[in-house]
Amino acid sequence: MSAAQDSSPSTSEQPFSAESYFATQPPPPTLDADVRNVRSFVSQQVAVGRKVVLVTSGGTTVPLELNVVRFLDNFSAGTRGATSAEYFLRAGYAVIFMHRQHSLQPFSRHYSHSTNPFLDFLELEDAPQEQTDERTVIDHARPIITVHPSDPEHLRSVLSAYKAVQKAGTLHSVTFVTVNEYLWLLRAVSKELHLLGRNAMYYLAAAVSDFFLPREKMSEHKIQSGKGSLILEMDQVPKTLKPMVDEWTPEGFIVSFKLETDTTLLVPKARASLERYGHQVVIGNELHRRKFEVVFVSRSSSSSGIVGYDKPGFEETWLRIDEKASAGGKEIEEDIINELVTRHLSWIKSVNT
Amino acid sequence: MSAAQDSSPSTSEQPFSAESYFATQPPPPTLDADVRNVRSFVSQQVAVGRKVVLVTSGGTTVPLELNVVRFLDNFSAGTRGATSAEYFLRAGYAVIFMHRQHSLQPFSRHYSHSTNPFLDFLELEDAPQEQTDERTVIDHARPIITVHPSDPEHLRSVLSAYKAVQKAGTLHSVTFVTVNEYLWLLRAVSKELHLLGRNAMYYLAAAVSDFFLPREKMSEHKIQSGKGSLILEMDQVPKTLKPMVDEWTPEGFIVSFKLETDTTLLVPKARASLERYGHQVVIGNELHRRKFEVVFVSRSSSSSGIVGYDKPGFEETWLRIDEKASAGGKEIEEDIINELVTRHLSWIKSVNT
Repeated sequence: MSAAQDSSPSTSEQPFSAESYFATQPPPPTLDADVRNVRSFVSQQVAVGRKVVLVTSGGTTVPLELNVVRFLDNFSAGTRGATSAEYFLRAGYAVIFMHRQHSLQPFSRHYSHSTNPFLDFLELEDAPQEQTDERTVIDHARPIITVHPSDPEHLRSVLSAYKAVQKAGTLHSVTFVTVNEYLWLLRAVSKELHLLGRNAMYYLAAAVSDFFLPREKMSEHKIQSGKGSLILEMDQVPKTLKPMVDEWTPEGFIVSFKLETDTTLLVPKARASLERYGHQVVIGNELHRRKFEVVFVSRSSSSSGIVGYDKPGFEETWLRIDEKASAGGKEIEEDIINELVTRHLSWIKSVNT
Repeated sequence: MSAAQDSSPSTSEQPFSAESYFATQPPPPTLDADVRNVRSFVSQQVAVGRKVVLVTSGGTTVPLELNVVRFLDNFSAGTRGATSAEYFLRAGYAVIFMHRQHSLQPFSRHYSHSTNPFLDFLELEDAPQEQTDERTVIDHARPIITVHPSDPEHLRSVLSAYKAVQKAGTLHSVTFVTVNEYLWLLRAVSKELHLLGRNAMYYLAAAVSDFFLPREKMSEHKIQSGKGSLILEMDQVPKTLKPMVDEWTPEGFIVSFKLETDTTLLVPKARASLERYGHQVVIGNELHRRKFEVVFVSRSSSSSGIVGYDKPGFEETWLRIDEKASAGGKEIEEDIINELVTRHLSWIKSVNT
């Protein structure tokens, strides 16, 4: 099989730790400006005592060339993240929406240019008659544009939620394309949100590449074809949950996602992730059932929580909606966010008990 | 260097020819339905004597797993193809727009959800007063939606072109995601367009992967991380220009693109491509200058055209617009399509001389 892992590293180098990653890979040029904007957004939310959630969304790319023509990508339109952001906003959170450029965004996601293309809503109509003294003028040359959505009620509701969020200033967007941009932003934004202590939630829904090509191994120009097969060897992306929990934002309420195509792997991999990184919740979802079914895996409240002493217990909570409800417009993200808001509140309160 | 070609094939297999490719890789399940729709569209255009251009647009993916989570992609938003399609329509062509799902499309491209997001154009206003006998009713609960674009003249012009094309029925869309879907569609659509003889043009602007992973080498489930580095070995995608010219559509006017990041490679690679495949035009473009400058490379009319007898001559025509004109809304695709329409007409006439 060609798409295979090499179980014995073929290079003498160790896998990148987060520390060695940031020491060797260059920060994106827009990082400082992005961080300044996030800082100002966060301070506005702190001032009014609002909880803030970082929602990451969409897939990251791994460019194969410095002048990038080809890249490895992770499948994600950004539906989970964009939808969830809307429900967090509705629940009163301020949202930092850190997403892949051009992936779906809250509100506008309902009207992508493929589904419900908005030009189909618009009509040109002759401008209304103008009565000037004795002449009646119809302005055929400058017709007016009118809106005729297929579902006006829905557009009204999306639009009014969108305008309300704009007015309240509770949504702040940050974009990434490559996995390198994602990693630098995640660290920097987590450190900014650290200010909020337990009032910060991290909802890590982006589909982040597990592999990358270190800068020093990238080809400068487009890889030329016609010279036989292509062989790529990529390094592992460092795990970021560990330093998030240990250093960047120890008090944050951190929710990660596990996407698998083999359902039997979901719970064991989610448990392993909680044991390894010590964060709060893993949401497991199977690629084809992800709009109808997810599983929350967390440390059970009855366990001692002392890793290595006794085996900590885990608990699973399944959330399901049926496909009929989904076809009728019900979104599982509504239930996911409701559940998380409750758990986050307990997490905030637990520090005082 | 890790992102490298293997100049000696590491497997004993020969590179795939187009024939062996289609004999071993499965057709997409929607192929038959897509072809039926194209056939019906083509026959409508034949009935009215309209020229037809196949515009391919956007990048193709190479899935690494059967249950696809990761894929290789080629950088392309679909700007060249979507823009060009508009100018072909304006020039009186019928357009088959074969594009990567969710890439830019003619007309709606002006209002992507990142640039000019359309929700920003819309406002909710209280419904106008209604006079019923003695009561005046203002319907606050069902506000009306009004349009306030930042550039109304531009939206009017886009919208009126869009509505005219819809009415004339001169635009037909076909979508692909993977390179496999692209290849099967390209062959099938070319064979359908073959009917039109010299009245068919092929404008192959899609960014097609040079490499792919044959189905038998794909991993069924998501490739697991945490087991060291990832090693991928991919096969070469068969060259399709050769069978297009020789078998699928020998009379078609075929325009291919060369995208390079190293400008010095443009003309030599374009000439090599014309020599190898015998089609009509290669349009060369450099990644960062592609919106301002392209080069048309074709066999010079003075050459004998007998390959292998005397060295055929080539001619280059550079089209350039300056960056100021571009900032003012001028699009180089307008000039590209003007030039091609003229050349296509000569090509059609040359059969009768």
